[in-house]
Amino acid sequence: MISAGATLAAIRARKPLVHNVTNFVVMNETANATLALGALPVMAHAAEEVEEMTGIASALVLNIGTLSTHWVESMVLAGAAATARGIPIVLDPVGAGATEYRTLTAHRLLDSIGVTVVRGNPGEIATLVGAHAEVRGVESIVAGLEPGELARTAARRLGAIASVTGPVDHVSDGSRVLAVDNGHELLATVTGTGCISSALTGAFLAGKPAEPLEAAAEALAALGVAAEDAADGAGGPGTFHARLYDGLYALDPATLDERTRIEEL
Amino acid sequence: MISAGATLAAIRARKPLVHNVTNFVVMNETANATLALGALPVMAHAAEEVEEMTGIASALVLNIGTLSTHWVESMVLAGAAATARGIPIVLDPVGAGATEYRTLTAHRLLDSIGVTVVRGNPGEIATLVGAHAEVRGVESIVAGLEPGELARTAARRLGAIASVTGPVDHVSDGSRVLAVDNGHELLATVTGTGCISSALTGAFLAGKPAEPLEAAAEALAALGVAAEDAADGAGGPGTFHARLYDGLYALDPATLDERTRIEEL
Amino acid sequence: MISAGATLAAIRARKPLVHNVTNFVVMNETANATLALGALPVMAHAAEEVEEMTGIASALVLNIGTLSTHWVESMVLAGAAATARGIPIVLDPVGAGATEYRTLTAHRLLDSIGVTVVRGNPGEIATLVGAHAEVRGVESIVAGLEPGELARTAARRLGAIASVTGPVDHVSDGSRVLAVDNGHELLATVTGTGCISSALTGAFLAGKPAEPLEAAAEALAALGVAAEDAADGAGGPGTFHARLYDGLYALDPATLDERTRIEEL
Repeated sequence: MISAGATLAAIRARKPLVHNVTNFVVMNETANATLALGALPVMAHAAEEVEEMTGIASALVLNIGTLSTHWVESMVLAGAAATARGIPIVLDPVGAGATEYRTLTAHRLLDSIGVTVVRGNPGEIATLVGAHAEVRGVESIVAGLEPGELARTAARRLGAIASVTGPVDHVSDGSRVLAVDNGHELLATVTGTGCISSALTGAFLAGKPAEPLEAAAEALAALGVAAEDAADGAGGPGTFHARLYDGLYALDPATLDERTRIEEL
Repeated sequence: MISAGATLAAIRARKPLVHNVTNFVVMNETANATLALGALPVMAHAAEEVEEMTGIASALVLNIGTLSTHWVESMVLAGAAATARGIPIVLDPVGAGATEYRTLTAHRLLDSIGVTVVRGNPGEIATLVGAHAEVRGVESIVAGLEPGELARTAARRLGAIASVTGPVDHVSDGSRVLAVDNGHELLATVTGTGCISSALTGAFLAGKPAEPLEAAAEALAALGVAAEDAADGAGGPGTFHARLYDGLYALDPATLDERTRIEEL
Repeated sequence: MISAGATLAAIRARKPLVHNVTNFVVMNETANATLALGALPVMAHAAEEVEEMTGIASALVLNIGTLSTHWVESMVLAGAAATARGIPIVLDPVGAGATEYRTLTAHRLLDSIGVTVVRGNPGEIATLVGAHAEVRGVESIVAGLEPGELARTAARRLGAIASVTGPVDHVSDGSRVLAVDNGHELLATVTGTGCISSALTGAFLAGKPAEPLEAAAEALAALGVAAEDAADGAGGPGTFHARLYDGLYALDPATLDERTRIEEL
């Protein structure tokens, strides 16, 4: 049963360790969002230690936002360790479609490790399923694809739950499609809020590992509700950004359930 | 004709992609400032993809604040790609003069690629033209050099527009010198505001590529006006920093033109 | 004589350069905290320049939060240069105990360079002295160890001043133990506040090099008082974080001395 509040309460009770191998731009922000929510973030990327760190984690988040050779190798090592242990893996294919290196790396990770959820914007996800997308840097525009169908198609083709974020988010396991209608337009004015949604997806998967589709949607609802609160009183992107962590920290399970707007399509 | 407002409007209409190969300290901050202004930032540094990423960008910003071998090689590759395509390049020689490695790397980039604007503090720029400067880490003191003359001399010797920032900024192409008298002293209390000015210079060059001298000065005026707004109500460096992104986001072209204080010397 | 205010005044008068070789997560935050306090931060990690940068610095801070081979080698080079010059060195063994790589690297640095202060949480410090500790990622729980005794034991075994931070901080040189009872619980909700305490320890050591035990305790008192001010009016971790820099910037030497709660055990 969908209950972002119940999963949030489980996260805060267990304080799962979420291991991130992520990009330089958002390391601080994703760690702070994870901590404000109530989970424990850790960032580690050296080949010497990623497998051991994954070995004590409850979820792994891989993000290719500023990828390079050594980092990709470490993502493969950490991903294999997570797959072997059966812990959930989130892949954020930042900028897939913008360069061939990013597209190929995303596919390499999808093919070689057991990705649970791939979380991206419509252009990134469309690129991975071979649809037409215009990706400029890390932003994207997709023409002619209904996002719910994109999520369903991506889940089937990629063999992972697809979490496609936008004004309304769509999460699918290939059969069910959940639409999440929480959030605020100021999220799009701050770098790394997509990466934050991936990190929080890792925390929610750790909090509800048996129902990853629901957990992925609940994570987006929780971030969306926090963003709605952060926007109330913000003077623009900078104060909104600071208030977003306040919002995550202040999330109350009961209120979160009341405000969650998740619909099954 | 100088009009920071008109260039800002052009940036917001076109949303140019600004490719940054920059330092670890300011990646998030420069991306957020670029996004708040209305352009699209992207950070990518791997040799495997920098040329392709530069190939879809409208400006390239190179910043040596935390340089190392692989990063410098990628800067050279990206710079060559930008030079070949004729898109503007900003070089921020962070810490030139503090170590020989930084000074030599700045010269190597100036010599090997087509830098449009070199943006630095007086000590960094003085170092590059061989003048006496005391550079401590990334801060500097220059004795006996009038900053307008420093900018003019640097532009002539380095073969690029020189943008020398300080309490009053001076930008020169070797003949004209523009002084920019916007800003606030709290800018000096936050790490990376110089780097932000370089990133925004990239966005303004993309918005007005035919007039790079004016665009470089306009970028500093825009940041300065945003800083003036951010300081109003700030409780110190931290809240000023958050409010700086609010200020950039809220910039209005008409008001910006009224408040721009650019003077030709 | 203990006086955080006097040391703060000395820091602001001399503006010592503090060279950080630190992790990707907190680079911006530790630089901004150092700058807000009144010292000059610099981040440099390339083997080509770390020794030269350390050569102009007044303190060196090594932090293994996102360590990898090249970075560790640079820490050794910088540490040797600092040892040769006799400037203070702070080691932050982030995550020691979480992976063997981190534990071994911390010991390698302690054994090969002249560490002045090792600053960590109880689990990290306990790991380094061989006591039982549960370290999850970068968080830790230590059972059955009184923190003042842990600090004293660690100082004796590691041959460095041990600064063990928690709700009450304990700093010891192996004989004296100073307890610091400033701070606020919101510090634990923001990533990198431990790293910030290590960076500020570097600044205070530079401000009072002859009395490193006292300087290390004073640094924690200063951060604690700033945190108390930041919490007053904060809406949660995000606005607290922004206000923390305001608090450091606004620290007044006389008031700081009045509010310092350092007790010798």
